[in-house]
Amino acid sequence: MTFEDNISADFSARDADAGVDPRLVTRWSPRAFKKVSLSDSDLVTLFDAARWAPSCQNAQPWRFYVSTEDSFDQYLSLLVEGNQVWAKNASVLCFVVVKKTFEHNGKANGFAEFDAGAAWMALAMQARHMGLYTHAMGGIKAAEITQALALDDDHKVVCGIAIGMAADASALPAELAAREKPTPRKALADIVFR
Amino acid sequence: MTFEDNISADFSARDADAGVDPRLVTRWSPRAFKKVSLSDSDLVTLFDAARWAPSCQNAQPWRFYVSTEDSFDQYLSLLVEGNQVWAKNASVLCFVVVKKTFEHNGKANGFAEFDAGAAWMALAMQARHMGLYTHAMGGIKAAEITQALALDDDHKVVCGIAIGMAADASALPAELAAREKPTPRKALADIVFR
Repeated sequence: MTFEDNISADFSARDADAGVDPRLVTRWSPRAFKKVSLSDSDLVTLFDAARWAPSCQNAQPWRFYVSTEDSFDQYLSLLVEGNQVWAKNASVLCFVVVKKTFEHNGKANGFAEFDAGAAWMALAMQARHMGLYTHAMGGIKAAEITQALALDDDHKVVCGIAIGMAADASALPAELAAREKPTPRKALADIVFR
Repeated sequence: MTFEDNISADFSARDADAGVDPRLVTRWSPRAFKKVSLSDSDLVTLFDAARWAPSCQNAQPWRFYVSTEDSFDQYLSLLVEGNQVWAKNASVLCFVVVKKTFEHNGKANGFAEFDAGAAWMALAMQARHMGLYTHAMGGIKAAEITQALALDDDHKVVCGIAIGMAADASALPAELAAREKPTPRKALADIVFR
């Protein structure tokens, strides 16, 4: 289903080139979420989008561990406390895991994290397509997650993702509310060299 | 400008969920390119899109080294031979480089490659938005690129990207022409766990 996107954000810090797809420019990572339930069907659609990212040798090294209603609190406890404060209102929490080796020859896949990042971006764009928002978190308890998910040495947890409907900034504690806006970016000249 | 996308591809191997944004499902990585010139303005728009990807602490660790008309042949020579065969017809070649440490504290950025993958996906989607195609390549001469681009120890080259207008498969050598179609993906159950 499509969720109604009823928050307004201030994009004045985003000086995008006029030709850039506005869907890319208006994607951002809120902390204020409004608790709604996502159906199994919604979740299938969301994560299915990540499948279509490209990857080295089409190895698809990305894995997504997704909370259920029953495991949400456990997933929440595996975030650092600073993220728990706001991520508790997300609809779903997810951990991105990569398979570190290629299936066809067992050798190290040096592109696993890069390719998983592409799959994460596909997921983030699909969420916007459905009226939902995502917020990736480096602040996770990686060792505890590895244990909780029983990951073997061939798998590495990279980050967490909160997914849900955005809420007004007023739903946040004051210090987080003050930061609740789309971030700017470096100038193009700082990242492109010819 | 918008380029006319006049190739047809067989997506029958792509069993996407019906709710997935078709732009994600129909993005793929051709090898057959038709040589066209991209203006500086086109290139600004393309790479500007990558700026809007999310990153840990908004560090934006991605860097793009982009060929000019003068440096195209040098860039091409830095791909493995198997990629040179078809990438020679791309409009532009690019190397994705990551900054390995955070600017604000000099510590290792464990998310550099993951975040660069997100920026790459933004670029790939922007290319489609403009009627262009991208093809990322792991097959590059990394040591030679590091030297040619004078990268220091704080930077690592990850992959190459060919960008251009797609051409009919008949433009390729026979063995590549036979493989010129969108690849399938693993089943959702192989990458999502609840």
